[in-house]
Formats: sequence, C-alpha cells, structure tokens
Amino acid sequence: MTRLSRPLDRFYSIIPAGGIGSRLWPLSRADAPKFLHDLTGSGSTLLRGTWDRLVPLSGPDRIMVVTGRAHRAAVEAQLPELADLNVVLESEPKDSSAAIGLAAAILVRREPDVIVGSFAADHVIGDVRGFKRAVVEAVAAAEAGYIATIGITPTEPAIGFGYIHCSGTLGIEAAPGAVRVDSFVEKPDLETAQRYLDDGNYLWNGGMFISRADVLLKQLGETEPELLAGLTALAEAWDTPRRGAVVDRVWPGLKKIAIDYTVAEPAARAGRLAVVPGDFDWDDVGDFAAIAKLHAGGRKSDLAILGENARVLADASSGVVIAQSGRLISLIGVTDIVVVDTPDALLVTTSANAQRVKAVVDALKLSGRNDVL
Amino acid sequence: MTRLSRPLDRFYSIIPAGGIGSRLWPLSRADAPKFLHDLTGSGSTLLRGTWDRLVPLSGPDRIMVVTGRAHRAAVEAQLPELADLNVVLESEPKDSSAAIGLAAAILVRREPDVIVGSFAADHVIGDVRGFKRAVVEAVAAAEAGYIATIGITPTEPAIGFGYIHCSGTLGIEAAPGAVRVDSFVEKPDLETAQRYLDDGNYLWNGGMFISRADVLLKQLGETEPELLAGLTALAEAWDTPRRGAVVDRVWPGLKKIAIDYTVAEPAARAGRLAVVPGDFDWDDVGDFAAIAKLHAGGRKSDLAILGENARVLADASSGVVIAQSGRLISLIGVTDIVVVDTPDALLVTTSANAQRVKAVVDALKLSGRNDVL
Repeated sequence: MTRLSRPLDRFYSIIPAGGIGSRLWPLSRADAPKFLHDLTGSGSTLLRGTWDRLVPLSGPDRIMVVTGRAHRAAVEAQLPELADLNVVLESEPKDSSAAIGLAAAILVRREPDVIVGSFAADHVIGDVRGFKRAVVEAVAAAEAGYIATIGITPTEPAIGFGYIHCSGTLGIEAAPGAVRVDSFVEKPDLETAQRYLDDGNYLWNGGMFISRADVLLKQLGETEPELLAGLTALAEAWDTPRRGAVVDRVWPGLKKIAIDYTVAEPAARAGRLAVVPGDFDWDDVGDFAAIAKLHAGGRKSDLAILGENARVLADASSGVVIAQSGRLISLIGVTDIVVVDTPDALLVTTSANAQRVKAVVDALKLSGRNDVL
Repeated sequence: MTRLSRPLDRFYSIIPAGGIGSRLWPLSRADAPKFLHDLTGSGSTLLRGTWDRLVPLSGPDRIMVVTGRAHRAAVEAQLPELADLNVVLESEPKDSSAAIGLAAAILVRREPDVIVGSFAADHVIGDVRGFKRAVVEAVAAAEAGYIATIGITPTEPAIGFGYIHCSGTLGIEAAPGAVRVDSFVEKPDLETAQRYLDDGNYLWNGGMFISRADVLLKQLGETEPELLAGLTALAEAWDTPRRGAVVDRVWPGLKKIAIDYTVAEPAARAGRLAVVPGDFDWDDVGDFAAIAKLHAGGRKSDLAILGENARVLADASSGVVIAQSGRLISLIGVTDIVVVDTPDALLVTTSANAQRVKAVVDALKLSGRNDVL
C-alpha cells in the first residue's frame, strides 16, 4: 500500500467546478455556486475539501480545475496553490462533456499516457482513506484500458441519487474489486430504491470517472465526433498564442451535454466501463435535506446552523438554518424546517420538500428575476 | 335610533395607545408598536381604524389619545385631526390604570358630567354598526351610574381571550341588553372555553370601559387611593403652566397596574359593573395566529401576505407572511406557517405556536438584545 503515501504515477485530477446547485437556492446562485460554500461546517468550502482530498493522490501540481471566468478569482482565492497552467476557464458553461473532455484533451497533448480522474467540486466525503483506496483501484482499472467509475455502496434506500447496476468481476489483478457496469439508472422512487438496496448489485453513482485520457476521448468521439473535434481544436491551440482566437471561434458551438450520455452510458453498453465499489461515506449534498442530514449525525431532533456569526434563537425546532444576512433568526416549534436567510432572498421549506426548490428557481427564471438567481 | 347618526351627548372617547404587542414581535416592537401597523390589509393602521370607528360616536374633537412621548409624531401623522388638547403624553409607560385614569381625571375637570369610554388602539372590529349599537347602550348604562363594559358574544371556544361571566338583566330602560358582571375569568384552556361557549353566560372581554368619569375615578380611588391622588394632582396641573413640573414630580411614582385590577374587577365584586353584549365581530389580534385567521376568512388553506410591495413566491403553503424587508420570500410546502421578515429580525413559527412568541421576546430582553426589541 505504499502507493497511498505518494501521488499516483501518470495520474492527473480534474475538478469541473461549474454547477450552481439550483436545489440549494438561495444559498447557491450564479455568483456564489455550491462549490464555493462551506456546507459541512468544517471551515472549508466544498471546492477546497475536494482539492485537499485529491492532493495525496495526484499532488498539488497535477490537479486541473475547469471553471467559469466569473469564478476565477474565487477559485484562486480558495486554491492559492493552483498553477495557472492548471486553470481552464470556460467562456460560457457547456456542461460536463466539454469541461472534462477539454481538460483531458489538453492533458493528453502535454502527456500522452496520462490517466485522468474527474471529481465533482461540490461533493462531500468523510472517509478520505476509503476514497483513496477506491481511486487507486480505479486507476489500476484505467491502466488496464477500462473507463472506471467509483460507485458508493448504498447504506439506505436513497431517492436523491442515481444508481449504477453492476455485475461480474472483471478479473483485473490490480483492481480485484472492479466489476462490470451493466447500466446507469436514474433517481428511483422509494420502493425501487429499497429493491436496489436489497438486490446488492446497485451502487450510488458518485459521478467520478477515471480513465486514460486517450481512452476517454476516443469514447467521447464515438458518441459526439463534432464535440471531440471542437475540443481537439481547442486543446491544440491551448498552450499557444492562438488560444484566444480558437476559443472565440470554437467555444460557442460546443454541444452542451453531460458526460453521462457521451462517455459513461455508451461505455457501459460497450462493456468498457468498470466500477470500483467504494465503501466510504459520500454525499453530493444535492439539497437542503442532505445538509440537514449531514449535520444532524442521525439525530432528527437537531437543528443545524450554518453561517458565520449566525444569530439564531430556537425553541422546540429542528432542521437546518443557513444564516447569511446577519439578522437575528428566531424559530419556534418548527420541525424539519429549512430556513435559508440571505441578504436579498429568504427560503422557508421543509426537508421533505427540499427537492422542490429547483421548481422555485425555474419559476424565478421564467419570471425574469435574475437579480436573485 | 337617531343617536347613531350624531355624536353622543356628554361622551368622550379615550384611546390608550401604549402596548407594544410582544406576541407580534418582530413586527411590533418598541419603536413600531402594534397599533401603528396595518394588520387587516385595509390600508389603515389599527390606531386609525379605531379613530374612524369612534368619530361617529364622540366626534373628532372628543377623542383623547394617551400615548408615549416616543410615539407622538407617529400618532399625529396617523391622526392629523387630533387636537393638541386631546393628546396625553406619558413620560414613561405606567399601564392602563394610569393612562385611562389620567385621561378621565383631565376630562372631568374640563367637563364634570362627562361620560368616558376607553377603547384599545389595537383591536379590530368589522361590524361598525353593531359596535355603535353596543356603545350607545353602554353609555345609557353609564348614565344610570354603572361602570359599563362591552362583552363580545363568543362564536367559538377561543383560548386567546379573557371571558366575562355575567347574569341577570339590570333593568336599565335605555340599556335593555345590559346585564350584571359576576366575574372576569382569565384565558381558559380549550375544554373550559367550550364549557363557557355552551353555558351562554360568558362573553369575550373586549377591554372596553364606559363610565361617568367621576364614577370611574371613585372606583379607582377605592382600590388605589395613592394612584388616584397622583392622577388628580396631574390633572389639576394639566391645563396650567405647572404641568411639566408636576409631571416630573408625580409621574415616576405612579403605580403600574392594569385597569382590570383597579376598576373592572372591584366594580364587578361590588355589583357596579354592567356588560352590554355586543353581537359584532371583534379581535384583539393578540398573536400571529389571529392575523392568519383574520385574513384567511375561514379558509385554512390560504396564505395571507401582509406588507407593502411584498414579494412572495409560495407553493403548497398556508398561513401568514409579513414582509417588511423587501426581500424575495419563497415558501415551499409549509402549512400554517408564520413568517415575519423584518430588516433586522426574522421569525419562523406556526399558528399553533403563536402564543409562544412572547417567550422569545422575554429571552431577548434577558440577554440584552434590546436592539431588536
């Protein structure tokens, strides 16, 4: 296990830091996306936590961050060690295929046999050693030519996550736990989730992809040849004075599509996708219910309070309060409540309704209220 | 019924405008007490509504307002017709015996046979004609020498109001409905309230007192001779250049006590208290549950929204939102909720917990948070 004590050979981490996290509105919004918030109460933003988790795997010089121009300053403030060479700025958001694909295309030109791993900027993992073990095994599967993902062993019938259906070991010597991915399945209802849990061949989709960069790009090109051509043109110009001109020409036309559809699902259908079961705690903190749960530590009666200098007076109340306005917040007799108090918008809901927050954001978009989005 | 079309002879209205309304925090507070808010959505503050209701009874020149120095400007802005002669400013709050007693003592010196009626500044009455009829009858009872009150015929087993237990008609010719008050009873529990409702001899205590001023003061003096002496000294100096000096000397020593204990209950025990049953809708708007009810019009599924330019986005929610901060407020799936959003304090509770708001205010007082009280 000496590999755990030093960065992995050939391995490069990619952190796509793009999603706003609409279900966490009004905390997360265009100018303060989810990854720039401390949702764990650890004192670190989710982005910084992701970075700290990846440094032991790839080293601080081998982590590439793909983010929007608007977030450059905030990202660099969070990650002072981040080298300019490792910053990829999106002139406009083009979803994960473009973000991860461009990073891979740039890296493969710099280092043809590089293995890349892409890890969301806004997930939470408590057991860093368990995470490392899974990545090491996924890198081994990648070395064997597979596109690898990490699936988290479910601990409950969660309805907020997608699942990976898997079967049969792949027999990769250095990745004994790696099994074949049969298919990806969308967020299930509770009954289906319970069936998945009982079945034992379903893992939570953690959205992590580890692969040789050339293998990843080949798969992407099979599904979306035009997108790959665009990314290749960008990558060829990236480390040259022509970057700006090519970005201006190519970027606007890049197809917006999630990597799940261009790489993960096609690779699964082709039998090229391996999954390493990860036996560690993980959460994509997709909504306020997840935040409440993260902080309650299993105690439903607790009230989690997030926010610097939060002034909260609570009586017979539970749930989560996110205090960002500096105002005094009083709760009386409200249970499983979610209160998000920001300077220009207030949200009051319950954990059970947390997934419906996105609908409010959609309604605000439709009514042109971009000032609070 | 010609008396209803012109002001009543000898009658003077007194509006004690003092209470903050702690159960309506953070809407009501020291610098913005309950009577200065529009809680009905009518566009008028409760104080203005009270004034408008009394003008047909006593005329605009015969309504005296007793309020704190700090509220003088706000009161005068609400009541531009209010003559200086009819403003009594308290240098510090001394509860209702002093407030009403001083007004009565000043008025009786100006007009020895005056009949005074005291009406809270922060109650809501919809049926103004029914209210007028009851006051006319109470004035008749006062002319007959009684201290009269108006009791509202209960329409439900309310637990938020005090009750008046009454019996036997008094046989006053001009006040055929007036009956004797046996006793006052505190806010009951639900079971007791139901018993009161079924019994038929209980009325809601509307806190209105109508009496000859000299009779009222005599009753007050029997219970609290020192307080009466202080009020008499103040009244003697009131319309003279000595007012300021006497106020400075006497005011600080005035006993703080509610008129219920100095006048109403002793008069009831002595058989001198008459109650006129009022068959009109009335509410003291004592808490946020009352506001929600006032606006719901019986429909529990409604969401009442108060506040100028309120921006509220609600989905599957009911209760009441009071929006004073100008922020966008979103509610998702919260029922019977109470959200009070002010620039420096936010309250989230439910109608069922509305009475517990006072405890929060008490806790804030104890912890020295006077900035938000």
